[in-house]
Amino acid sequence: MTIQHNDTRVATSTAHPRLSLNQATIKYATLDEAIAVSVGAGYQSIGLWREPVQQAGLERSIRAIHDSGLRVSSLCRAGFFTMPEGLERRDTIDDNRRAIAESAALGAPALVLVAGGLPAGSRDLVGARERVRDAIGELAPDAKAAGVTLAIEPLHPMYASDRAVVSTLGQALDIAEQFPPDVVGAVVDTFHVWWDPQLAEQIARAGAGGRIASYQVCDWSTPLEADVLLSRHYPGEGVIDFATITAEVEAAGYTGDIEVEIFNQAIWDTPYDTVAALTRDSFASSVGVHL
Amino acid sequence: MTIQHNDTRVATSTAHPRLSLNQATIKYATLDEAIAVSVGAGYQSIGLWREPVQQAGLERSIRAIHDSGLRVSSLCRAGFFTMPEGLERRDTIDDNRRAIAESAALGAPALVLVAGGLPAGSRDLVGARERVRDAIGELAPDAKAAGVTLAIEPLHPMYASDRAVVSTLGQALDIAEQFPPDVVGAVVDTFHVWWDPQLAEQIARAGAGGRIASYQVCDWSTPLEADVLLSRHYPGEGVIDFATITAEVEAAGYTGDIEVEIFNQAIWDTPYDTVAALTRDSFASSVGVHL
Repeated sequence: MTIQHNDTRVATSTAHPRLSLNQATIKYATLDEAIAVSVGAGYQSIGLWREPVQQAGLERSIRAIHDSGLRVSSLCRAGFFTMPEGLERRDTIDDNRRAIAESAALGAPALVLVAGGLPAGSRDLVGARERVRDAIGELAPDAKAAGVTLAIEPLHPMYASDRAVVSTLGQALDIAEQFPPDVVGAVVDTFHVWWDPQLAEQIARAGAGGRIASYQVCDWSTPLEADVLLSRHYPGEGVIDFATITAEVEAAGYTGDIEVEIFNQAIWDTPYDTVAALTRDSFASSVGVHL
Repeated sequence: MTIQHNDTRVATSTAHPRLSLNQATIKYATLDEAIAVSVGAGYQSIGLWREPVQQAGLERSIRAIHDSGLRVSSLCRAGFFTMPEGLERRDTIDDNRRAIAESAALGAPALVLVAGGLPAGSRDLVGARERVRDAIGELAPDAKAAGVTLAIEPLHPMYASDRAVVSTLGQALDIAEQFPPDVVGAVVDTFHVWWDPQLAEQIARAGAGGRIASYQVCDWSTPLEADVLLSRHYPGEGVIDFATITAEVEAAGYTGDIEVEIFNQAIWDTPYDTVAALTRDSFASSVGVHL
């Protein structure tokens, strides 16, 4: 395969040993395809999503991952905890319990949680945030028993109404610190937190508490896509200062896998092996990992 | 004029005495049209923009405002301070000095400042933010002499790269507090800050320091418009909890005018008098002003 993308990038044949391809970056690939593409492009780790795992079947997925030799960096995604008490909330808690079990079975150290947006018709951010904390409190014993860290992912504030009422790393840590660090941590995703004037201090705080459960990278550039959910880019194609943020995450003591997770229609429409190679090479040239 | 918009709204013939129509809400109106519409809809205050004022001519604008009996709640907008030292930066500082003089001449107590985005090709948020602070330091003596408060407006983090590297009220206050409160303050604009988990404490901090230079309201709803700049709505049409935020702003001691500033193509395409009436009535029914 010929890589023709950006002259300044160094084409490599093996991926950084800590690089993980998050399945969402090749959203339309089956689990088998995602595994084959990751191995073929020299990755040692993959970030899984529940839907393709369920499509393949959990037992088959466990075997396929085992046979591939890939590590599983995380399982995405559970959460969506903002609805009030009732049947829907009970179903959601049950589904999160299943996600914890799936994470353990797949060998994923972390389960990524998205808080959920405001319930329809509600303007009560404070109440919604309390219900996120309460749900995590319910799930913490299951996570501890399973040896899985619940990884709260703050999402960019532009998603605060419809997707995640947890918008900053500081907010995620305020919740996580109510639980042991191996049970609840936070995701540092550059796309969501790069703008935060408190980012450096909150990364240090997360590191000191052993709370960085996942480091995810992709880039931000404007104008945003018409669907802002899909406005993510390969590292180096936007304005995020990865050199600084990665150095802060490393100084905070995080030594785990680093996922590239990109939601972008044009990337989803690109052949999977091309995406895996471009992801690998943009990571090598732009993300600034030293460890 | 018949108002047919929302059955739950109370049509009124006079506006709340503290309500100000920000000219951007009727963007295509000339200054004379904006004044006539505001007076006709019972407003006592108007928020001016520099472009329509310059188009009318400053002296003519001063006379027209005086003759109308309207207060001027603020002048929008100056700032854009993130470029490095050089001719462009000097031009910008000079233009900001002119904007301070215009504010004083028009009787506007506050000049709204937008920080500016990352310079082209830069990823250095910290440096850009320092240059914002430095520019305000240069302008502070002019503002003090003119009796105009420089009102730093934090913009929503989705604009951090291309429009404003100052994204939170806390960040705006960190800069403002380096200067006397009558010289540098902050704008609380619900659209930009509603999501912030630190909003209540930062409004209280701003109030304690006498730093709320302007309170602006409009609503947030999703999905966002394709151009996220234009994704603002009448109060009550989205998810912002105005009752809570307005109560916090009032408890913080702010007693000045409250501007409705809406960037929205559909509203811009609506007859001005209809917009002025809908703004007045949505303000009355949704913004929760008690003072």
